[in-house]
Amino acid sequence: MRLSQFFLSTSKEAPAEAELVSHKLMLRAGMIRRLGSGLYSWMPLGLRVLRKVETIVREEMNKSGAVELFMPAVQPAELWQESGRWAVFGPQMLKIKDRHERDFCFGPTHEEVITDIARKEIRSYRQLPVNFYQIQTKFRDEIRPRFGVMRAREFLMKDAYSFHSSFEDLQREYREMYDTYTRIFTRLGLKFRAVAADTGAIGGSGSHEFHVLADSGEDALAYCPDSDYAANVELAEALPPTASRPAPGATLEKVYTPGQHSIEEVSVFLKIEPSRMVKTLIVEGNDGPVALLLRGDHQLNEIKAAKLEQLPDEVRFAADTVVRDISGAAPGSVGPVGLNIPVLADRALMNLADFVCGANDTGHHYTGVNFGRDLPEPVFVDIRNVVAGDPSPDGKGSLELCRGIEVGHVFQLRTKYSEALSATFLDENGKSQVMEMGCYGIGVSRVVAAAIEQNHDDRGIIWPESMAPFAVVITPIGYHKSEAARQAADKLYQELGAAGVEVLLDDRDERPGVMFADAELIGIPHRVTIGERGLKEGMVEYLPRHESSARNVPLSEISKLLLDILKAA
Amino acid sequence: MRLSQFFLSTSKEAPAEAELVSHKLMLRAGMIRRLGSGLYSWMPLGLRVLRKVETIVREEMNKSGAVELFMPAVQPAELWQESGRWAVFGPQMLKIKDRHERDFCFGPTHEEVITDIARKEIRSYRQLPVNFYQIQTKFRDEIRPRFGVMRAREFLMKDAYSFHSSFEDLQREYREMYDTYTRIFTRLGLKFRAVAADTGAIGGSGSHEFHVLADSGEDALAYCPDSDYAANVELAEALPPTASRPAPGATLEKVYTPGQHSIEEVSVFLKIEPSRMVKTLIVEGNDGPVALLLRGDHQLNEIKAAKLEQLPDEVRFAADTVVRDISGAAPGSVGPVGLNIPVLADRALMNLADFVCGANDTGHHYTGVNFGRDLPEPVFVDIRNVVAGDPSPDGKGSLELCRGIEVGHVFQLRTKYSEALSATFLDENGKSQVMEMGCYGIGVSRVVAAAIEQNHDDRGIIWPESMAPFAVVITPIGYHKSEAARQAADKLYQELGAAGVEVLLDDRDERPGVMFADAELIGIPHRVTIGERGLKEGMVEYLPRHESSARNVPLSEISKLLLDILKAA
Repeated sequence: MRLSQFFLSTSKEAPAEAELVSHKLMLRAGMIRRLGSGLYSWMPLGLRVLRKVETIVREEMNKSGAVELFMPAVQPAELWQESGRWAVFGPQMLKIKDRHERDFCFGPTHEEVITDIARKEIRSYRQLPVNFYQIQTKFRDEIRPRFGVMRAREFLMKDAYSFHSSFEDLQREYREMYDTYTRIFTRLGLKFRAVAADTGAIGGSGSHEFHVLADSGEDALAYCPDSDYAANVELAEALPPTASRPAPGATLEKVYTPGQHSIEEVSVFLKIEPSRMVKTLIVEGNDGPVALLLRGDHQLNEIKAAKLEQLPDEVRFAADTVVRDISGAAPGSVGPVGLNIPVLADRALMNLADFVCGANDTGHHYTGVNFGRDLPEPVFVDIRNVVAGDPSPDGKGSLELCRGIEVGHVFQLRTKYSEALSATFLDENGKSQVMEMGCYGIGVSRVVAAAIEQNHDDRGIIWPESMAPFAVVITPIGYHKSEAARQAADKLYQELGAAGVEVLLDDRDERPGVMFADAELIGIPHRVTIGERGLKEGMVEYLPRHESSARNVPLSEISKLLLDILKAA
Repeated sequence: MRLSQFFLSTSKEAPAEAELVSHKLMLRAGMIRRLGSGLYSWMPLGLRVLRKVETIVREEMNKSGAVELFMPAVQPAELWQESGRWAVFGPQMLKIKDRHERDFCFGPTHEEVITDIARKEIRSYRQLPVNFYQIQTKFRDEIRPRFGVMRAREFLMKDAYSFHSSFEDLQREYREMYDTYTRIFTRLGLKFRAVAADTGAIGGSGSHEFHVLADSGEDALAYCPDSDYAANVELAEALPPTASRPAPGATLEKVYTPGQHSIEEVSVFLKIEPSRMVKTLIVEGNDGPVALLLRGDHQLNEIKAAKLEQLPDEVRFAADTVVRDISGAAPGSVGPVGLNIPVLADRALMNLADFVCGANDTGHHYTGVNFGRDLPEPVFVDIRNVVAGDPSPDGKGSLELCRGIEVGHVFQLRTKYSEALSATFLDENGKSQVMEMGCYGIGVSRVVAAAIEQNHDDRGIIWPESMAPFAVVITPIGYHKSEAARQAADKLYQELGAAGVEVLLDDRDERPGVMFADAELIGIPHRVTIGERGLKEGMVEYLPRHESSARNVPLSEISKLLLDILKAA
């Protein structure tokens, strides 16, 4: 593509409302333009990238045996009333009335529609399994759309829905989709992790999220570099320590710690590591207050705590007055010794001896405290967030922490929708059975933004080869002045084009600085600069986008060099 | 694709509500499924065809230099208010309120959005011309959606919008798009015509419609087989006769024609051809009644008549009482002789001598009537529909009549939207100018239905090669019983697949009759039947879809034969 025949519209500044790097860079590179709140047009440059993602998703879905179809965006209310979601989906669903005042919505997802298709088309176990997918525009009326296409209202999604005659077969396809997603994100050239996830509002049981790793990600993840274990930090299990508890070595002492309330303050004051201290949190239990104990350097995980049978579904901290009633001390001096309520201790405390904790006497702490000697053995439970270095729950190494952007999700829906909509089939014995269902989504437009969050520098985007709008950009110096530069650039452009390379020739009458800045901003992986000066010595400049200095390559070799590099990529 | 891994769902009967052949066949073939009124899911088989159309449209648009982008379906009301169309578009526009009660619509078209993009992105004549296009889902809330995807509410459209610094450049691109559309429909393998069209509600001036020719088409067209002239019958000019009028040869006679009112009745009664008779229609003129004269075998074209300065914008026939007052006779006996109102005669009457007409005396006609002798020369005008055999207005042959389905439309919008939305640019002299605009649409999903209307027989669809969901279908007899048939079928399947042919292997455990009926219903262009009996003699059966009897081909040659045929197609 000659740039003069393309439509590139770059800018040095991004609008003030763009907070996220990907949002800024997509606007600056002219990939997208805002039409309204959460509504974006994909400009020619952006659309090329979107289509790359779409193509890879489609190819891998087809390879997995899934079959593509295409369902309407506008859906009748009746199906949603049948599934019970018309009333409960909430204001994210864009409801519509047609000219006859009949109710519809702009589909936020397609479980109802595909289940309606399945119940009408599938009669026998011989037609199962089947996995239908589409790549289609969805609408979710976010209350505060932001971050550009990362959280737009109208977005492009690949959604797949599989139907099975047994749970075992659903599990087989679920694994197949898990592997397909792994292939998709690997081909896209992204660093990613599949994490075990709570199932959330979409319903069903058994699910994994696929996250692109990026510092700006909304989700905190724990993963094991030595295995494929990964989980939301909120869900990652903290294993009990393997070492056994040392015998008590110190005597119990009450020390005066005036004005020292927080773990940090007491740690500095007593010159004791937070990891040798115990913090005591008083929360409301199902039968009165409960004390939760955590190591000083650990954080309470409220999701885990809320799952304990002793606690309600949502963790609520006890009021200060309750804490004072129970302990006789101000909150910063509370500890488990002599406390007359149930005590639940995090498992990290199992092998802690001679620790420090509050003395239930305002302005005082105990040192040299030991379970079994100074207070009863507590009940040990997993109630903390994992930290970097914790052993991986799969026993294969240590956990690392990172942040991720959710771009994919696989679910075992089971019979939630097939039961509600009576999607049944006749089994081998002629008996009517409800179909098992799975669903599998990828936020196609979101993948583009996530890729930029992961791959950029201060000059712009750094596309992975498989997502780049063009593989090569040729930047001739003085294309409109130097016959030699023009001829060499045109010849390379034609050669690469003939070899099937997507190449952009910057044939504008612009200064080199402008051409280079644009090439870097829009993130083309390989740049070749052709100028009269270099040509006199038969040389051109080659600069990969992820490097900072160019190297001279003989003009006669540049074409082959690029083809070799692209073939290897 | 193995049929067992595809999802085919055919049926022998179509639902009663399907009136049109394409609608019936698309439902029977399992190409589409109805979700609601005017809402259709494209099933895997249908989607393959839709994508073929999409791909050819995209390739040819790209070749023309147009640049693809992708705009949102949901559009803010503000832009439509700015263009003035929010109020006037009518109930076809699906209006939406979001959670904040702000007004939007599901875009029925994208002139406003693209003009908004152009006014923000284009500042200089150096950025012009540009032609943006997209392939995107539209919604038009038809009051009575029918005919399946032919007139659906949600449909897939290619819409392009070009921007220019001058009218001349718009005309150049308009011609380029005209040629591009011609290439597209030619590649699709369809018989079609581009016809000059009225501009309709979308606004602007200068437009052509592209029609796929089919007996079931909604529009009557006139075209010249010897040139590219084509027009809606309503708009096609009827040229004046070239032969001059013979001298009167008969005397005026009043004959008794009791009970004979219509042209046909009088023609039979008097044994005179309708083409030698004149019918007289009394209509309301701007200044009292006017008589319109037509040859007995011609039909009034009300659109042409309404354009006459003597008549109002809509033709209204005079009441019977008025006719009696003017002529003194009942309507079936009215004629122009002695009539005291303005007379406008169709140009076909210019060279008619010795004709028959009503005598203004109930139950009587004149014979041997001549203009200039028996009544004054009338004003001659073009007020009739052309008929087959009329000379083509471009002087290159004779007209034929046919029916067409509109699948494409090219418009010169001029400055309708660019003025309303202030889409301006700075010209070579730094002066602000309003952009000239063109727009160019193709009903991508409608093309699929139109192709079926044109190409089918009583057994099913007959796809043109370029639109076929699969090029070849292999129907092995006893695939699950005969090792020889299975091996030969698998081998051919693999060979063709390796050569890049889209081949469907019917590996179901079905009777031959079922396989053949399905293959014919879904319209695969080439069928190869492999059975043990033929294999014993080294033969297989080859049947092109458009032929009725198969021929035997040596198994060793079938692969090469198919590849040769497909290459030539």
